[in-house]
Amino acid sequence: MKEYPVIKVALLGLGTVGTGTYKVLQKQKEFMAEKIGAMVEVKYILVRNLEKAKAKVADPGVLTNDWNTIVQDPEIAIVIELMGGMEPARTCILEALRAGKHVVTANKDLVASDGEELLGAAGEHQCDLLYEAAVAGGIPIIRPLKQCLAGNNITEVMGIVNGTTNFILSRMSEDGMEFEDALKLASELGYAEADPTADIEGLDAGRKVAILASVAFNSRVTFADVYTEGITKITATDIRYAKELGCAIKLLGVARNTESGIEARVHPMLIDSKHPLASVSDCYNAVFVVGDAVQDTMFYGQGAGELPTASAVVGDVFDIVRNISSGCCGRIGCTCFKQLPIKTMEQIESKYFIRMQVEDRFGVLASVASVFGNNSVSIAQMLQRKVKGKDTAEIVLITDQVEERHFADSLKVFDGMSIIKEVSSVIRVY
Amino acid sequence: MKEYPVIKVALLGLGTVGTGTYKVLQKQKEFMAEKIGAMVEVKYILVRNLEKAKAKVADPGVLTNDWNTIVQDPEIAIVIELMGGMEPARTCILEALRAGKHVVTANKDLVASDGEELLGAAGEHQCDLLYEAAVAGGIPIIRPLKQCLAGNNITEVMGIVNGTTNFILSRMSEDGMEFEDALKLASELGYAEADPTADIEGLDAGRKVAILASVAFNSRVTFADVYTEGITKITATDIRYAKELGCAIKLLGVARNTESGIEARVHPMLIDSKHPLASVSDCYNAVFVVGDAVQDTMFYGQGAGELPTASAVVGDVFDIVRNISSGCCGRIGCTCFKQLPIKTMEQIESKYFIRMQVEDRFGVLASVASVFGNNSVSIAQMLQRKVKGKDTAEIVLITDQVEERHFADSLKVFDGMSIIKEVSSVIRVY
Repeated sequence: MKEYPVIKVALLGLGTVGTGTYKVLQKQKEFMAEKIGAMVEVKYILVRNLEKAKAKVADPGVLTNDWNTIVQDPEIAIVIELMGGMEPARTCILEALRAGKHVVTANKDLVASDGEELLGAAGEHQCDLLYEAAVAGGIPIIRPLKQCLAGNNITEVMGIVNGTTNFILSRMSEDGMEFEDALKLASELGYAEADPTADIEGLDAGRKVAILASVAFNSRVTFADVYTEGITKITATDIRYAKELGCAIKLLGVARNTESGIEARVHPMLIDSKHPLASVSDCYNAVFVVGDAVQDTMFYGQGAGELPTASAVVGDVFDIVRNISSGCCGRIGCTCFKQLPIKTMEQIESKYFIRMQVEDRFGVLASVASVFGNNSVSIAQMLQRKVKGKDTAEIVLITDQVEERHFADSLKVFDGMSIIKEVSSVIRVY
Repeated sequence: MKEYPVIKVALLGLGTVGTGTYKVLQKQKEFMAEKIGAMVEVKYILVRNLEKAKAKVADPGVLTNDWNTIVQDPEIAIVIELMGGMEPARTCILEALRAGKHVVTANKDLVASDGEELLGAAGEHQCDLLYEAAVAGGIPIIRPLKQCLAGNNITEVMGIVNGTTNFILSRMSEDGMEFEDALKLASELGYAEADPTADIEGLDAGRKVAILASVAFNSRVTFADVYTEGITKITATDIRYAKELGCAIKLLGVARNTESGIEARVHPMLIDSKHPLASVSDCYNAVFVVGDAVQDTMFYGQGAGELPTASAVVGDVFDIVRNISSGCCGRIGCTCFKQLPIKTMEQIESKYFIRMQVEDRFGVLASVASVFGNNSVSIAQMLQRKVKGKDTAEIVLITDQVEERHFADSLKVFDGMSIIKEVSSVIRVY
């Protein structure tokens, strides 16, 4: 029987993704050697609470709470960081790279903020630093962007990259639930965390957009560069009107590479029901990529969860093992060789959906239209409904493409008009 | 300014994909060196007709009709085979590999039939042989399966991998056209070839299924192992009934890795309208992959065309350039290390949609049901309609999962029953 080399790895963290990664590595043992030419052995698992972790592993001897043992062990070739958060993850990754160890991480916070420094350190030490699991869970997207689509100038990367908010919006759309009830259901089902802020305010999606934009456009975009706006203000009424206008409402991460700079943002958007992203529902994620050669392409799958995320982590580990066997670690490192400017939100053009309550009398519509006209905003579609039992009409309209600042100017004017009782919703349109 | 190495390549063929590849390589020149650490230079383009080809290239000096010049030129590192068909493509690829040249090919016919031999030759000479463009055009799928999803036991790969037939079925479904008219339209628009047999009979899709199954299940499946059935018998009536039953009809390539062996087949299928593949329309392709870790994932995009296919070709070329720079060519070769049995169609289980014309009288339905019952076929859904102005009723039903041979036995019995005037359609159900 052929003897295969053994590559020893350390897992940092045994939470959801850590446990999943451990399971997948165990399950892959049978064919691993033939598939990648080596065996991967988990030599250490770094945990805080040794007692609690014992139940989760077959061989409790691998558990340790001492990072120094790991980083100083010359046998460890790959460190798999699955602790999440900024520290101590950041320090561990840097120390591992400085010790010549390759790193796989699922840590979007860290890659979205400190990607440049981490990838720089990897390059300096000729180590691999892979992070497929940091964006859209199990969906292959980083490697396709860096390799399969390398022959493209990618102009746009857009997607549904947060499962929690997509589940909430799906329940609101399919079951007519209001936001608060859908959020409560998501919490009960374990799809939303105890503190759901990072999800519902678009921060989690924003981190993924930063990473996707950096890889797609070969120019560094950090989380601080990404405009984020959550879904807390979306109502079932907005979704009903959107449907009437042939659209779905999704929390979209949008990154565009335009001649005047990069746009990177996360906010709710109306999107045509026929667009492939519109039918991505529940906890599924999807990333839509537009390149000058490939044209439209989309990657769809589970954006989170124990095993799907572990699939991405183990894919990265296996890739590094193949690199080690072929002596080509660091083969593809940081690909941000451009320094493109990043646009502010005021410079960005959008179409808008706006829903407002107005006095139900002659001439109101003309007034609204003239405010938009005076601010270079033209109207593409409009609905007007009488509100039952009230002296109020509801106007819903979609504008043509307009600079954000012109649209904001119109809103300021509406603010001072007595005939306009309330601007109920303002949502961008794809 | 940094000096970058120059990698010289030869293009074989200057048809649609060859022209696209030439264009994409020209367009990528600006950032190529920074992106992949080297410049790719097209030194030769092999064509049959030098005169005709001159108009297509900026530097006619690269055109040649002499393969020997190319294969004997030690400067040529990569041969890009885009001639299509079996010969002389096969000989060229083998001679190139034997001369130590890496090969990129978009040739599905060849990879689906002779993949084992070609990849064997590549391995023997430590060369890369990449074929991302052979399946689903621009959609990244081979590299994701071999690398990103390497941590999975993949149980199913299924997809819409032929754009021509998907366009025809989309027109039949959306515009109510019959097959012949939709085919005519496809020809007029240039979506169908002069001889459309390979597309409409499922042969083209069958080749892609062979390649996908081989990569996904780590076991060789050739085109000869794939059952193929085209869409020529599908009618607008079938599609209407399918819609009524909540389904779309698609030409699906299905490959499954079951405990009793591999299933590999192409045939029309009813698929639930909510399945992500159901909304893939027109010329788009999509490949749906199920793995034990990643669960459901889908890859969507343009399955053919000049630039989308060139995107895949150039992605492969760039990957080889990176391998050359890192000295790790042949890093991932043939991954078929298993030898799994392949099931015959008779052993496969399916659900069936069947539409038949029967005598419109008491007891007919009971007779139909009892034939199915006697052959272990149970019925999941049924519709019965009187046919206007005739003494005939139309029965449409969907069976539960059943072995193909049991279902075939039922059909034989129907054949001899006078109350059954015609079995109009038999289509499998996903």
